[in-house]
Amino acid sequence: MQAQLIALDWGTSSLRAYKLGPAGVVLEQRSLASGIMHLPSEAREIAGVLCSDGFELAFDAACGDWLEAEPGLPVIACGMVGSAQGWSEAAYRNTPVDVASLGQALHKVLSLRGVEVHIVPGVIEQVGLPNVMRGEETQVLGVLPGLETEVLIGLPGSHSKWVEVVGGRITHFDTFMTGEVFAVLSKHSLLGRTQKPSETFQADAFDRGVHVALSDEGERGVLSTLFSARTLGLTAQLLPEQQPDYLSGLLIGHELAGLPDRAKHLPIILVGAAPLCARYQRALARCGFAHVSLAQEATERGLWQLAVAAGLTQPV
Amino acid sequence: MQAQLIALDWGTSSLRAYKLGPAGVVLEQRSLASGIMHLPSEAREIAGVLCSDGFELAFDAACGDWLEAEPGLPVIACGMVGSAQGWSEAAYRNTPVDVASLGQALHKVLSLRGVEVHIVPGVIEQVGLPNVMRGEETQVLGVLPGLETEVLIGLPGSHSKWVEVVGGRITHFDTFMTGEVFAVLSKHSLLGRTQKPSETFQADAFDRGVHVALSDEGERGVLSTLFSARTLGLTAQLLPEQQPDYLSGLLIGHELAGLPDRAKHLPIILVGAAPLCARYQRALARCGFAHVSLAQEATERGLWQLAVAAGLTQPV
Repeated sequence: MQAQLIALDWGTSSLRAYKLGPAGVVLEQRSLASGIMHLPSEAREIAGVLCSDGFELAFDAACGDWLEAEPGLPVIACGMVGSAQGWSEAAYRNTPVDVASLGQALHKVLSLRGVEVHIVPGVIEQVGLPNVMRGEETQVLGVLPGLETEVLIGLPGSHSKWVEVVGGRITHFDTFMTGEVFAVLSKHSLLGRTQKPSETFQADAFDRGVHVALSDEGERGVLSTLFSARTLGLTAQLLPEQQPDYLSGLLIGHELAGLPDRAKHLPIILVGAAPLCARYQRALARCGFAHVSLAQEATERGLWQLAVAAGLTQPV
Repeated sequence: MQAQLIALDWGTSSLRAYKLGPAGVVLEQRSLASGIMHLPSEAREIAGVLCSDGFELAFDAACGDWLEAEPGLPVIACGMVGSAQGWSEAAYRNTPVDVASLGQALHKVLSLRGVEVHIVPGVIEQVGLPNVMRGEETQVLGVLPGLETEVLIGLPGSHSKWVEVVGGRITHFDTFMTGEVFAVLSKHSLLGRTQKPSETFQADAFDRGVHVALSDEGERGVLSTLFSARTLGLTAQLLPEQQPDYLSGLLIGHELAGLPDRAKHLPIILVGAAPLCARYQRALARCGFAHVSLAQEATERGLWQLAVAAGLTQPV
C-alpha cells in the first residue's frame, strides 16, 4: 500500500513515528527514546548540511529514510514538541474547543530537509486554576468516533488527564500527578526503603489501597493516608512486596475520589498503556463507576483525522 | 549548678544532647549529625575497649566527656533510637495513653561505659489505620503543664503529627507526610525544574497555595492541585521564585484541610522549628483556626518530666 502520511507522537521522554497508508492504516512504526528532554546531540549530515540541532537530528532518525524514499509525504506531529521547550511553540487553544477543529490550527515548522512539520496545538483551560494538555487532545479525537455525545475520557500516566467531551467539544479537564508522585515517592522517600518489587500484581494490596482512599480516613487526604504504607508494614499487615501495589492503589483511589460526582453517570473511556489502564479499570469498578471501556491506537487515529481535516491527506 | 540528668533527643537525622541541672534547667547543649541513619563508623576506644558500634560511638561523642566528669549522671533518650532500626527497641504503647505514665515504661540499654540509657517508648494507635510516633510523645508531655484539659498539639515536620490530648492522655493522632512530600517533589519532580529559590518568604504565593487547597478545586485533592504549581508558572501567574512557597502553602493547606472539624474549636499548640511553625501559624489563621499558640523547649522539658516520673532524678 502507498504511504499517505507520517505521523509523530513526540512527547517528553519518547518519540513514536508512524507511516500511515490509505484510511490511516499503520504500515510501519518506530519508537525512539528521543523525547524533547532526551534529544540526540551528536552532529550529523542531513540533506548535505552538518547539523547539530537535536530536533532535526531526532526527526531525521525517526523518518528521514521514509522521506528520502517518498519525498512528498506530509508530516504531522503532536505532543510536547509543540511546547515552549519543544521544536517550535504551537499556541494553546482555549476550552471549550471542538477537537476536530484543531486540524485548522496546525503550526508549521520547516525542517532542514525542506519538509514542513505540522504541529498540533495543545489545549488550555483558564477557568479557575489553569490546566494544560499537549498530545492528549489528539488521543481524545482518536477515540471519539462512535462514542456517545457526552463522555469522560481518562488518560492515566505520569500526569493523568480526565477530559469531559460533549458533542465533540472538550468542555473541561483535570490533571492528577499520580504517576509522577508514585515514582518519586517510591524512589526517593521513606516509603521506598521498605518496598520490595513484586514479580506479580498484588491484587489484594492494590484493592486495599483503593479502599483506604475511599474510606472515611481517606477524607483526610493523601498526605495523611500515605503514612499508612509505612505503618501497615511496621505492624506486619503489609509485606514489603505488597507495598508498591498498595501505594499504587492508594494513589489511584485518591485520584478517582477527586473526580466530579457527575463522572459516575458518564460513560468512561480509558486510553493508555494496557497494564496501567487495567489498574484504573479495576479501581474504577471498586469506586462504583459503571460504564468503563478501553480504547486503542488513539494517537495514530487522532493524528490521521487531524491531517485529513487539515487537507494534508485524503480520508480514504 | 550541679548537673542532674543527661537528656538525648535522638532522631533519624540528628542527635541533640542536653545536660540538665536542678528543675531541668539547661546547663549545656550540643547538636550532632549522628541520627540513627547517619551514625559514625570509625572505630575508637571507649572505656578502654576498641569499639566500632555506631550507637556507642555517637553516644560517646554526644556525652562521653560529661559522664567522665560526673560518672553517676542518669541518661534518658527519646526518638527513633528506640525503633527497630535504633539502638534497642522500646515497644510502642497503645493509645489512649497517659503521657506522664510513659516514665514508668522506660526501656534500658546498657552502654559500653556501664551507664544505662533509658529509652522512652513510642506510641501506636491501632484503631483504623495504624499510626506511630517516637519522640513526639515526649514533646507533647513537655508542653502540657498549664494547658487546658482538651488540646490539639501540632508538630510540623517531615512527618507532621497532630495529637489530641484530653486530660493528659493522648486519645488520637494523625500523621501527614507534608514535609517529605514537599522535599521530594521539589528535588525530584517536574515541579522542581521551574522553581527558583527565594531569599525572602514569598507571603502572597504561600497564601495563594493555602487558599487553593481550601477552595472547591482543592476538594479534588492534592494530586490534582499540585499541577497548578506548574500551570500557574506556565501562564505567568507565578514567578519561579514564588513557586517553592506556593507549593509549601498548597501542601500545608491540604494538611490543615484534613484535620477533623472539631479541631477548629480546640486550643492548638504548635511545637517545632520556629520558621516552620510560623508558616503553620499563618496558614491556620487563614483556615479559621482561632486559638493557636507556640511552645518551646518541648523535648528537654518532656525528657526531664519523664526522668522525674521514673525516679531518675528529683523534681527540684
